[in-house]
Amino acid sequence: MLSKDDILNLHSLHTGALGIKPELPVTNKEELAEAYTPGVAVLAKLLAKKPKLKSQYTMSGKLVAVITDGSAVLGLGSIGSVAGLPVVEGKALLHKALAGTDSLPLILDQVNVDEFVETVKNMANSFAAIHLEDIAAPRCFEIEKKLSSQINIPVYHDDQEGTAIAVLAGLKNASKVINKPLKSLKVIVNGIGASGYATAKLLFKSGIKNIVPIDKFGIVTPDDNRYNSYQRQLAKDLGINSSLKNSSLSDLISNMNVFIGLSEANVLAAEDVAKMGKNPIIFALANPDPEINPQDAKDAGAKIVATGSSQFENQVNNILVFPGLFKGILQAGIKHISYDLQENVADALSKIIKEPTAQQIIPDVLNKNVVETINNSLLGYIQRD
Amino acid sequence: MLSKDDILNLHSLHTGALGIKPELPVTNKEELAEAYTPGVAVLAKLLAKKPKLKSQYTMSGKLVAVITDGSAVLGLGSIGSVAGLPVVEGKALLHKALAGTDSLPLILDQVNVDEFVETVKNMANSFAAIHLEDIAAPRCFEIEKKLSSQINIPVYHDDQEGTAIAVLAGLKNASKVINKPLKSLKVIVNGIGASGYATAKLLFKSGIKNIVPIDKFGIVTPDDNRYNSYQRQLAKDLGINSSLKNSSLSDLISNMNVFIGLSEANVLAAEDVAKMGKNPIIFALANPDPEINPQDAKDAGAKIVATGSSQFENQVNNILVFPGLFKGILQAGIKHISYDLQENVADALSKIIKEPTAQQIIPDVLNKNVVETINNSLLGYIQRD
Repeated sequence: MLSKDDILNLHSLHTGALGIKPELPVTNKEELAEAYTPGVAVLAKLLAKKPKLKSQYTMSGKLVAVITDGSAVLGLGSIGSVAGLPVVEGKALLHKALAGTDSLPLILDQVNVDEFVETVKNMANSFAAIHLEDIAAPRCFEIEKKLSSQINIPVYHDDQEGTAIAVLAGLKNASKVINKPLKSLKVIVNGIGASGYATAKLLFKSGIKNIVPIDKFGIVTPDDNRYNSYQRQLAKDLGINSSLKNSSLSDLISNMNVFIGLSEANVLAAEDVAKMGKNPIIFALANPDPEINPQDAKDAGAKIVATGSSQFENQVNNILVFPGLFKGILQAGIKHISYDLQENVADALSKIIKEPTAQQIIPDVLNKNVVETINNSLLGYIQRD
Repeated sequence: MLSKDDILNLHSLHTGALGIKPELPVTNKEELAEAYTPGVAVLAKLLAKKPKLKSQYTMSGKLVAVITDGSAVLGLGSIGSVAGLPVVEGKALLHKALAGTDSLPLILDQVNVDEFVETVKNMANSFAAIHLEDIAAPRCFEIEKKLSSQINIPVYHDDQEGTAIAVLAGLKNASKVINKPLKSLKVIVNGIGASGYATAKLLFKSGIKNIVPIDKFGIVTPDDNRYNSYQRQLAKDLGINSSLKNSSLSDLISNMNVFIGLSEANVLAAEDVAKMGKNPIIFALANPDPEINPQDAKDAGAKIVATGSSQFENQVNNILVFPGLFKGILQAGIKHISYDLQENVADALSKIIKEPTAQQIIPDVLNKNVVETINNSLLGYIQRD
């Protein structure tokens, strides 16, 4: 691992993680005429008549905008859009390096939801898809919902769909390891922010009936006004009984099969793991430090432990999802990241592990099969919802 | 020259004229940790404290946004933002191919001026400079003025500053050829749109006192309400007498030294050229067809003829300006494209021609000295206004 100074030097070497590559030669007047004027006039006239052909003849057919407002940067909180720039650059770099997708890091000032949506909408014709990144809940829910309904290209929020898909993929294999059907699992989701909300929704859509959402005041119930309207609606959808209001994680964890933490370091106690049902599955995904130390969880009886970090086995990370997902939706012309599509991607991702074990429920983040497997699963995908 | 189909094939080969190039390797876990997480957390924390360092460690320190709303595409008019996409792509390609500058083509829906400005402002921290392109007058004046005052990076409109600088450079050499001081030239500017307005202003700022602005109702006068407020203010600044209202090009051209056309094909008659002062200088810059055929102008007595086209001698084209100008302002950290800076660039550009002749008042558009000469002139430039 490089030192802090080495990392800074590395990122300053080329002023950022990416550059622009010319795809047409411009070395003589003929090439200039083809690549620029009067060549572009041929294209401009064509696109004036048939705007949809822009996807074939301009960068807008391949370019993904990776956008943050810096309102929830990594585990660091709302540290400003400029501080989010290295993260969107990193994601854009991974799009290219892992999947060959051309994408661009963009930051947007922390304007209100409608202005955020208007800003992206006004420029949306420049892009083939929108990859939102590190936007805080609940504004991320509103932004994604409004944007999706107002523009005709896919909108994806990595913290939501990316995390949800990676968790579902891991959980599918974990259920095989403990030999208990996915749909019968009793699951706690701890931390109902962007990722916890999206994960709970996707697990529910995938047929898991018993999901308990917990956040800072304990269980989220439909009438607990300390939670926002998205969180309360989720509790309602999950059938959470209002009488459970104020119940804590510790109150609720007895006999549960799965703990999914998308919250913060050290909030899961070893004694709570010990109270869980047979073969506890712990996804302690807080970064950089997990909700419980993996060894402590195992010592307390956990059968399978996953984290978000490369330091431990079973790294459940969005990097497993977005490069292949974007490659696939762009190639297949898919416009909407539905729950059905997310399940499809999770299924493809989980099946890369032929024989899951407690130590390996998810592929390595640099496993070269991941991108192609997800991509291939989307090429044959038929949008159902 | 390729056929129309060949041009379309060329631009579809790589889905547009440009791609994204990764600048950091991501082939193993160490590189992943450096280029992405936890490496980016080091940067994110640093930029949260010192946002200005973004220019050193992220793409925002080098990336130029080339933006159009398609309201004045080439000579084709307001054909829509999508139709403007090939033009901004072409410009972005030239930035890279001619000057090594990383830039990105973006289009913006034809929203009102304030929404245009807000949209760009909201994303401005992603970029090092803004290159506006093919935006119609008078909205381009308002957009550039408002944007420049609201964001802290350079804002440049190629149709304005680019054209004005190229014209001034050519005119400096033309004045040498006819051996008459630049400031003493009597100049008609025909067509007071984006480029004509900016050109008249720059020539005036450069000391030319006798400039006559003409548009579709004849001379522009300060009180002629058929012209917009920018055009009327220009007439006032140029000292145009209101009594001249309705005077036509033909009425006004007698004894003038220079005709600068930024209007449309075939609006200058040979007999009008014949009425001009000694050694007429004709800049017939309408594209694709000039205000007068160069040979017709010469037959009528023109000493020097320039056009915007590569088909004729003396191609006065913005391509001579923007690649070197952006390279220079980015390297020198210049924030404002002032008139003084424009004069400086025009001067550097004109001096590339050591001994101007009637057939060569401006360098060839692919002359490799152009970019470096302009760049060097800006590295030593001290902002004065």
